[in-house]
Amino acid sequence: MAIGALLWHGLWVVLARHVASLLDRVRSILEQAIGRAYVAKSIGIIGGTGPEGKGLAARFAMAGFEVIIGSRSAERGAEAAKEVEAAGVKKVRGGANAEAAAKGDIVIITLPYEGIHETLQPLESAIGEKVVVSTVAPLAFSPGRVGLLPTQRGSAAEDIQLLLPLAQVVAAFQNLAARKLMDLAKPLEGDVIVCSDHPTGVREVIDLAAMIPDIRGVNGGALYNSHYVEGITALLVSVNRIHRVEAAIRVVGV
Amino acid sequence: MAIGALLWHGLWVVLARHVASLLDRVRSILEQAIGRAYVAKSIGIIGGTGPEGKGLAARFAMAGFEVIIGSRSAERGAEAAKEVEAAGVKKVRGGANAEAAAKGDIVIITLPYEGIHETLQPLESAIGEKVVVSTVAPLAFSPGRVGLLPTQRGSAAEDIQLLLPLAQVVAAFQNLAARKLMDLAKPLEGDVIVCSDHPTGVREVIDLAAMIPDIRGVNGGALYNSHYVEGITALLVSVNRIHRVEAAIRVVGV
Repeated sequence: MAIGALLWHGLWVVLARHVASLLDRVRSILEQAIGRAYVAKSIGIIGGTGPEGKGLAARFAMAGFEVIIGSRSAERGAEAAKEVEAAGVKKVRGGANAEAAAKGDIVIITLPYEGIHETLQPLESAIGEKVVVSTVAPLAFSPGRVGLLPTQRGSAAEDIQLLLPLAQVVAAFQNLAARKLMDLAKPLEGDVIVCSDHPTGVREVIDLAAMIPDIRGVNGGALYNSHYVEGITALLVSVNRIHRVEAAIRVVGV
Repeated sequence: MAIGALLWHGLWVVLARHVASLLDRVRSILEQAIGRAYVAKSIGIIGGTGPEGKGLAARFAMAGFEVIIGSRSAERGAEAAKEVEAAGVKKVRGGANAEAAAKGDIVIITLPYEGIHETLQPLESAIGEKVVVSTVAPLAFSPGRVGLLPTQRGSAAEDIQLLLPLAQVVAAFQNLAARKLMDLAKPLEGDVIVCSDHPTGVREVIDLAAMIPDIRGVNGGALYNSHYVEGITALLVSVNRIHRVEAAIRVVGV
């Protein structure tokens, strides 16, 4: 009985993946036919009350998106939104993570790695097949060393794909300096390396990155490669400490 | 008896490391006193007959260094040197790996990861306390994926430090496009991220990188971080395939 249910669930997941993949292709063909990518209108940020979440909220709201900053408590989400508005940005509001997951056309994850399991599992059905951007770098700080925490699948982004099997998980935005994201007067610099197994997701997130002035999305291949990009975040923490800067990276020759 | 010998060897290694570290500081103080870094005159390249080895040989010979391209067979080393000379570069000669190890003020390793143990162990005493540059990225190619081979210590460079405990191992030059290194008419682009536990080695290799026009060395911290830099090489292979380019990376904001 239990084995039967398990097999049934497995079959359902495989079938749903195939349907999602088919829909992805249909959407891709339609996009090419109409000559532009599907444009998201709203962005929900899960665990968005830290510097990375608030910074991305501010930059995307400035680019014209409606942004919902999600948090475990709706109150903390609302507070974070007020902070962003106080910096002179409109169209940002706060709420519970469930609201950000439900209302965002694109969902951005800015949780610490340790929190992804607990926070994302209850949001699986609200997120469904949406494009989910993992900005997570599973950093492990120890004296004189910045390591990466062990993950289930090799990277935080792959673990998020495991938690949200129907979503189009795209790893991106791990390497931008969080503090510079909130310094709205200054232009940002750096490339956003975009890794995913979902072609439509890759295109949407490259378009999304391009909405921030001076930022460029670069296709970095399969989600598997997100491990390397998360490693760059760890490397940049060391570079920042040594040089007392907030560095980012750029891919040259592309 | 065996345990006594082992302890004695261990004690000797620890003592030698302390003496090396002390000499490193003395050299560093002297350098600051005379206002410039110790300048190497010759470079030996171990396993230098591939594109990376010949490319670095050409670039450093153009910068005025005397370069010895080493190979398992002295003949193959000499052939590689002739190829580089045919491209219009002087001051390059070939020989056995042992000669490159003995005669280079700085030793550069351009071996495939699989070859480091067999090749470097016999060279330990010839290399001694020299600055050893690991350009090795332990790439594992499989269909649709570029991974990193498992290493003993976390990276190829750390494994080389394990094989050459007295040497000043510095990880660098993994991310420059090998084919562009040999295209001498065109300027290179990209940063060389320099990781080492030896401060003098870091400075020498940053100076070395600066000898190639348009290339900059960036201090990337401890040798531990070489894991991330070797990962960037794997990522760049994917980026190159997707975009049909020969990309490199640059650290911006430093």
